Amino acid sequence: MALIVQKFGGSSVADAERIKRVAKRVVEAAGTENSVVVVVSAMGDTTDILLDLAKQLNEHPQPREIDMLMATGEQQSIALLAMAIQAMGKDAISLTGLQAGVMTDGVSRKSKILSIDCHRVEEELEQGKIVVVAGFQGGDEHGEINTLGRGGSDTSAVALAAALDADVCEIFTDVDGVYTTDPRIVPKAKKIPVISYDEMLEMACAGAGVLQPRSVELAKQFGVKIHVRSSFNYNEGTIVQEECEMQKELEKSMVVSGVALDDNVLQVTVFDTPDAPGSASKLFTALADARINVDMIVQSGNRTEQENDMSFTVSSDDKDKVIATLDKIVPEIGASSYTLTEGFGKVSIIGAGMITNPGVAARMFQVLAEKQCNIKMISTSEIKVSCLIDLADCNAVIAALHTAFGLDAE
Amino acid sequence: MALIVQKFGGSSVADAERIKRVAKRVVEAAGTENSVVVVVSAMGDTTDILLDLAKQLNEHPQPREIDMLMATGEQQSIALLAMAIQAMGKDAISLTGLQAGVMTDGVSRKSKILSIDCHRVEEELEQGKIVVVAGFQGGDEHGEINTLGRGGSDTSAVALAAALDADVCEIFTDVDGVYTTDPRIVPKAKKIPVISYDEMLEMACAGAGVLQPRSVELAKQFGVKIHVRSSFNYNEGTIVQEECEMQKELEKSMVVSGVALDDNVLQVTVFDTPDAPGSASKLFTALADARINVDMIVQSGNRTEQENDMSFTVSSDDKDKVIATLDKIVPEIGASSYTLTEGFGKVSIIGAGMITNPGVAARMFQVLAEKQCNIKMISTSEIKVSCLIDLADCNAVIAALHTAFGLDAE
Repeated sequence: MALIVQKFGGSSVADAERIKRVAKRVVEAAGTENSVVVVVSAMGDTTDILLDLAKQLNEHPQPREIDMLMATGEQQSIALLAMAIQAMGKDAISLTGLQAGVMTDGVSRKSKILSIDCHRVEEELEQGKIVVVAGFQGGDEHGEINTLGRGGSDTSAVALAAALDADVCEIFTDVDGVYTTDPRIVPKAKKIPVISYDEMLEMACAGAGVLQPRSVELAKQFGVKIHVRSSFNYNEGTIVQEECEMQKELEKSMVVSGVALDDNVLQVTVFDTPDAPGSASKLFTALADARINVDMIVQSGNRTEQENDMSFTVSSDDKDKVIATLDKIVPEIGASSYTLTEGFGKVSIIGAGMITNPGVAARMFQVLAEKQCNIKMISTSEIKVSCLIDLADCNAVIAALHTAFGLDAE
Repeated sequence: MALIVQKFGGSSVADAERIKRVAKRVVEAAGTENSVVVVVSAMGDTTDILLDLAKQLNEHPQPREIDMLMATGEQQSIALLAMAIQAMGKDAISLTGLQAGVMTDGVSRKSKILSIDCHRVEEELEQGKIVVVAGFQGGDEHGEINTLGRGGSDTSAVALAAALDADVCEIFTDVDGVYTTDPRIVPKAKKIPVISYDEMLEMACAGAGVLQPRSVELAKQFGVKIHVRSSFNYNEGTIVQEECEMQKELEKSMVVSGVALDDNVLQVTVFDTPDAPGSASKLFTALADARINVDMIVQSGNRTEQENDMSFTVSSDDKDKVIATLDKIVPEIGASSYTLTEGFGKVSIIGAGMITNPGVAARMFQVLAEKQCNIKMISTSEIKVSCLIDLADCNAVIAALHTAFGLDAE
């Protein structure tokens, strides 16, 4: 008897036929003795349709009202999926984020899950029901609805799996698992059977779109075993879990386990930041307060002794918020101006084996040089090296890195 | 400084342009000093689209899941309307039924409002916000979402107006007010400037679709002044309020104030009901438990000394529930069988003046006889006479009654 949390994305529930297919899969997983909690996203492009409608009414809608609007997407999916499961003879109940006890921090559109009060979910499971929970949303103690931001359904699923102490959290997607790089760019990409939380986290942050970084973080924190697999077949996908001995052995031979691309990058440069204590702190605190995730940060060499240029990257999705924040903070800290530049991609190589293998970054730069590729920014972690390059060069560079680090399939 | 509750139906918020028009109207009503609470229904045919999707997944979906699904329609409208109002420079906030404190009795799809806890709405009004509330829905103490059934947004608006002690509850519709009969059937129909709760209630029950009967009942109970008016112009509509002296004077000359048609009638006949104490009670209790409103009831003359045939009418919308209920209760009470017959219309004449004017029913039957119209069932109240007749005869009969009772416009 196992407790399984399953998560299906928006494309898996885009129409009645697909919802029926998901229902079948869920009922199969439940079988005669398993408990199943299913987390779903909004149907297909519901979210985009609603956002478009909102734009027609208000160029800058309040985030709270966007949350109110967006949350309806998942609420529709859960009700429909519950009905489809019931039609297959299995009892089911749909729960909104609030009803499932997903307590969030009250921040609209980019809320964090503070805690999950599982008693309602457990009660329904005890009654033999399949529990269908709205992903991407939660609420605060006043009954206000918050959304977790795009892709937040992965986080909902992992958080529920952690709170319920589930045996596994199955994330269903349209690919067979996590690949060494995007198979659409590099046909020789291979599926990774097992990957550690840290590597998966770097892969996710680096732009491998299969899992949301925050969901991996959470999984690592609570030791939730994630199984990333296809909703179209029954193949084994990729298991994300704590690094085991076998993996460590494997990594000795495999320095780099994956190559990732993030093509949704906005480069920001703030000019003439006073070289005074606290300037950088004020700048990045303001960005953090606006819930903008800053990725690569580079303080370029002194222009004068008193002033520096500061460059960093953010997600293109945050463009509006970045402008609003910088318009305010740039004059406050006494910097002169700022620019936003698009058209870059961030290419990353990831691998836990890097720690013990010096020269990996150098090898990467060499590959980029061979491709005549100009590097705009560099950032590194213990198990990752990322380079910001022209978007036009990205595909060729990724294929070359994939080959150079021995990842190509036979 | 007035407190105004406004209600806009689904066709008024069917697309972005119409939502903007409603926002403009709301902002105008608020002006510089009025407090406004707006109740809205789901956009256009959202409800039908969602119900259709549900049917594709499950022929007999659980009412609870239908509530979960349906409630999203209003939640979308309120968020969008709040955004549109904000775009016009006026602060606004959207609240779901639950957030607005609309407590319901936990019955899915046909819930009743038990009470309204106004503190959140009042708090937001005090902050100078226009409060946009989801009609048609409420919730129970466990956070379960209930819907009030079709047309329930009128009831939401009146209940809020009562709870907030509003000066007026404006119900916006696509006609100019309440007419002596349906102007599409009888072009000579006139707008009624003022009508009493009782007459409006009988009109509404008799099929005049402008207001939901329950909303009128509630308005009468709490003395809420209703203003039924057009969303397309600024004409005065129809005021529904307690009968005043002037009206009483007027009624002496106007015996009948309106003629109504309900063309959504299903006639049910239960055969050979045992003539034992409690048979009728068991039958109608079972129907009431299933939340089926029974309208006209006729116990036709004894077939034998021990058994009677029992006929009654219900709304065609309740057909499925009626079948489910009768399949169970008819054998239980020892009746032999039942039939459902469609194709009838209920024509009613309404007027508070009837009480003091004998012979009104007789005059109505005479008009029907002149039209060669066969009467299937008759029911009367102090201020209403209703006849069930063939649907094909209804329009001619309504026009004839409108003329016979002196309602035709000059």
